[in-house]
Amino acid sequence: MDAAINLQIPDWLVETAGSGDLSLSSDEERMSFVIGLARDNIRRGTGGPFAAAVFECGGSRPVACGVNMVVSANCAVAHAEIVAIMLACAGLGVYDLSQGPAPGGYELFSSTDPCAMCLGAVPWSGVKRLVCGADGADAEAAGFDEGAKPIDWEAQLIRRGIRVCRHVCRTEAAAVLDEYAADGGIIYNGRQSAASAE
Amino acid sequence: MDAAINLQIPDWLVETAGSGDLSLSSDEERMSFVIGLARDNIRRGTGGPFAAAVFECGGSRPVACGVNMVVSANCAVAHAEIVAIMLACAGLGVYDLSQGPAPGGYELFSSTDPCAMCLGAVPWSGVKRLVCGADGADAEAAGFDEGAKPIDWEAQLIRRGIRVCRHVCRTEAAAVLDEYAADGGIIYNGRQSAASAE
Repeated sequence: MDAAINLQIPDWLVETAGSGDLSLSSDEERMSFVIGLARDNIRRGTGGPFAAAVFECGGSRPVACGVNMVVSANCAVAHAEIVAIMLACAGLGVYDLSQGPAPGGYELFSSTDPCAMCLGAVPWSGVKRLVCGADGADAEAAGFDEGAKPIDWEAQLIRRGIRVCRHVCRTEAAAVLDEYAADGGIIYNGRQSAASAE
Repeated sequence: MDAAINLQIPDWLVETAGSGDLSLSSDEERMSFVIGLARDNIRRGTGGPFAAAVFECGGSRPVACGVNMVVSANCAVAHAEIVAIMLACAGLGVYDLSQGPAPGGYELFSSTDPCAMCLGAVPWSGVKRLVCGADGADAEAAGFDEGAKPIDWEAQLIRRGIRVCRHVCRTEAAAVLDEYAADGGIIYNGRQSAASAE
């Protein structure tokens, strides 16, 4: 067994995340930036059509960005949100982002509603707010499996004090999923998905 | 933002996982081994009272082991199951363990019922079977938060073709949770947990 877990982040993502030129001034601008990462991820061949980013609440530049690297990194759990949360925790030196230095806390932007795993990670991350682009149904229409989420998942987050804002730039976000599917991108776990639909 | 995600696995765990002396011949022996990892993790001060391991189905030695390293590694998502799945994928070079070399597939042992996040990771991992020790209620009794799982989560896994076997060595597993809580171990995310219980 390896003595460490090591996942290399694509160079272009590290550069983009660290760009000093970013000045994202609204939820729509932040989401459009994240959707752009998902689009770049498929066009550059570094992973699947999903991206996420952690911002200080209302911040103009990301604290950390993640893209789906399941296939490219051979890692079942390397979804965009998990990658972004791991990088944000590492960068800030905290296991709970509510303990980070930003007075207003942190928020997670996801280009698509989180799957069951990433949804479960949201409360553990300590973010105060979740902002989503495409609907989970858009991902499923493209062939992806969202997993078994509680029917009232949005209300469950709100009960934990996490604000939720969905369908921001939904059309733009769903178009990336459709582009990936139309180009014949790997829809992993399609086998399990098919079995569950029987 | 860092150019890589890097999580160091405790030396003792790497050594234990790689021991050639292991000959675990039943679910109870495999679970007792995993519970021992959870116990060692708290006694050695390397993390929380949770452990997990991936085996070939019925295998006598683990393919990969994980322990909870949330606090020790400053990583919100470094739960035992996530760590074990990441190491198993890396070791076998697959993102879906159902594509690994073992003809009978792989199974995940978890010292406690998985939390909402780890539960969501189970189908993505490609394991054929999930075996659990302590009940989620035992973890909550010790102060931990399991997150919002679908009420019928066990049936949902079975629908996906994943067999589930729970409460294996439950008393032994729950005792580790109690030992941790009694010793005043950090119950992280207790704040959110308290908020959700209001």
